[in-house]
Amino acid sequence: MSNPPPARVGDPASAIDTPALVIDLDAFERNLDRMARFAHDTGIRVRPHAKTHKSPAVAWAQMVRGAVGQCCQKVAEAEVLVAAGIPDVLVSNQIVGASKLARLAALAKRARIGVCADDRMQVDAYAAAARAAGVTLYVLVEIDVGAARCGVAPGVPAVTLAERIRDADGLVFDGLQAYHGSAQHIRGHGERKAAIDTAAEAVRVTTDALAAAGFECRTIGGAGTGSYRFETATGLWNELQPGSYCFLDADYARNLDDGGAEGSEFEHALFVASTVMSAVAPDRAVVDAGHKASAVDSGLPTVHGLADVTYVSASDEHGKLLRGAGAKPLGLGARVWLIPGHVDPTVNLHDWYVGVRGGLDDGVVECLWPVAARGALS
Amino acid sequence: MSNPPPARVGDPASAIDTPALVIDLDAFERNLDRMARFAHDTGIRVRPHAKTHKSPAVAWAQMVRGAVGQCCQKVAEAEVLVAAGIPDVLVSNQIVGASKLARLAALAKRARIGVCADDRMQVDAYAAAARAAGVTLYVLVEIDVGAARCGVAPGVPAVTLAERIRDADGLVFDGLQAYHGSAQHIRGHGERKAAIDTAAEAVRVTTDALAAAGFECRTIGGAGTGSYRFETATGLWNELQPGSYCFLDADYARNLDDGGAEGSEFEHALFVASTVMSAVAPDRAVVDAGHKASAVDSGLPTVHGLADVTYVSASDEHGKLLRGAGAKPLGLGARVWLIPGHVDPTVNLHDWYVGVRGGLDDGVVECLWPVAARGALS
Repeated sequence: MSNPPPARVGDPASAIDTPALVIDLDAFERNLDRMARFAHDTGIRVRPHAKTHKSPAVAWAQMVRGAVGQCCQKVAEAEVLVAAGIPDVLVSNQIVGASKLARLAALAKRARIGVCADDRMQVDAYAAAARAAGVTLYVLVEIDVGAARCGVAPGVPAVTLAERIRDADGLVFDGLQAYHGSAQHIRGHGERKAAIDTAAEAVRVTTDALAAAGFECRTIGGAGTGSYRFETATGLWNELQPGSYCFLDADYARNLDDGGAEGSEFEHALFVASTVMSAVAPDRAVVDAGHKASAVDSGLPTVHGLADVTYVSASDEHGKLLRGAGAKPLGLGARVWLIPGHVDPTVNLHDWYVGVRGGLDDGVVECLWPVAARGALS
Repeated sequence: MSNPPPARVGDPASAIDTPALVIDLDAFERNLDRMARFAHDTGIRVRPHAKTHKSPAVAWAQMVRGAVGQCCQKVAEAEVLVAAGIPDVLVSNQIVGASKLARLAALAKRARIGVCADDRMQVDAYAAAARAAGVTLYVLVEIDVGAARCGVAPGVPAVTLAERIRDADGLVFDGLQAYHGSAQHIRGHGERKAAIDTAAEAVRVTTDALAAAGFECRTIGGAGTGSYRFETATGLWNELQPGSYCFLDADYARNLDDGGAEGSEFEHALFVASTVMSAVAPDRAVVDAGHKASAVDSGLPTVHGLADVTYVSASDEHGKLLRGAGAKPLGLGARVWLIPGHVDPTVNLHDWYVGVRGGLDDGVVECLWPVAARGALS
């Protein structure tokens, strides 16, 4: 049920079969280096999110640059990471169900495993699973810092949950999960900062209440690619969980900087290679990559490197391009590089990364990395 | 890179691990029987679309009920179907690139293989691949019947392409591909019918021009779940290509019938099983199925069988539910059955179908079917 890779190592990039998920390795490594330098300069820990990349190869490229571990959202993702030797994995999510918890606890024999809680029933189930396996699970109390999704209210409810964790054999209270997902894509720089300032107030109230009850937080985790500088600047968070920064996507690139300009300090490093498969009208072309090749939950892909060409609609296996007056013709068989609207679910559609060195147009395939946790839903 | 199945045969449906893709086999078989009866009663051929189901097991359930073959969109999907013994496969799409065409031609040694063309360069490449493999490919000329995506203009341009196919060794001109994709989800019954009536005019102009040039069309194919009765009623099409009817999705169920009511003659037969993993506020709950488990390109999933509960937002691995005043509480661990917004890309997110007999709540797991062509992009 796994599909063959769309290229061979050593192939010219132009020979990659399409659609394919392609990493520009030079840009990718610059992105990793940029985040590693930030961590070094500020002294903050970085625990990149593997829900973006689902790949041991990417995880290790982050680890050798100083990442303290990996985050993920699913037990099945954690299984892939631990099998690849990652020594410290946080499931930045609530896990419910005895069979999943038995699997999670089994991982704790081979790695330091963290998990989040926002309910005492979860805590009791985590403790039972840890005791049954004879392991320790490190539990973060998730607080709602503004997304109104998961997480207990800041302050006393977090303390109550921390006490239950402290009192449970098999569990260690490790701190707070304070991630503001919906803030990541607030376009305005000031508005995005304001959302994190509000989140910081929730963290402060909670750490004060925890301190008054005798609790120390080893970890205060959160932040994403869109906001991590803000969390860092507060001095409250000590662990960042960015995912998309390694690849960047079209949606993140629409965030505004403090000068009001679109863009990102990171570079687009992940592309969907596509081919024109129909070109019957002078103003349009159809490529072989629709929404089964590039996820559209956060908008359509954009077209890389072709002036005045727009990807205007996606069906399952077709992407329609419109050519403006300034665009060159796009003939049958032409290669079109797409920048995904959202990298995380796009990666999840593919079995292989094709790593290209030396640029998309003239480069060479250097590596093929399996998307090892593709479809790891459980 | 394939994930383990989320259940075992014989398990109660309540024990299925989540998220999981679940077929209500009773409803599924009624859907298949309904379409087979329609084909029998009208004498039209049905060639269901495997881009929806990507499964030999589903394909064979359709074949034993009289389907004449299968459609698909990708060579890699055709490979899965032919490997499973399907004797007649139409790639209802243009295929570009020498390596893909060599693979397609290789399949023609084991099955009758059809493919579409809207450009003479495709025709020449199809012919070269067929000759190199010593096989025959059956080529449909795709005409644009209103979607402005692929397909030559109706009339003379189709005749010109048919002549090129006729004159090419290794190819047989098989007729027309006349599929109106964008008509399928036009909500109003009358408006949807009008779109197909316009498409019919394009077909008529083209078959008249072909007849004048001495061409007969063995196949005039097209139609989908939203429109197939209209194409059939024109008497022009002789082969239907519906995909979604076997499962039905939330989007199709929003089409209006001739009385102006939402709904479909088909039943929802495909569900994403999910579990409440966070329930911190009385008016909301969060399930473990976001847009990596249920595709959102055609809207969010809907909630099956729970009054006054709405799925209001999807992130990668979270679905937020809001409970209205009339809803029962949704506690941690509660099972929630989701109806996907769009079945085709949702199926493509999963490795396994879990087939349940006897109803979702009290039924038993009868079968596990691999989504064998999951991720078959090439």
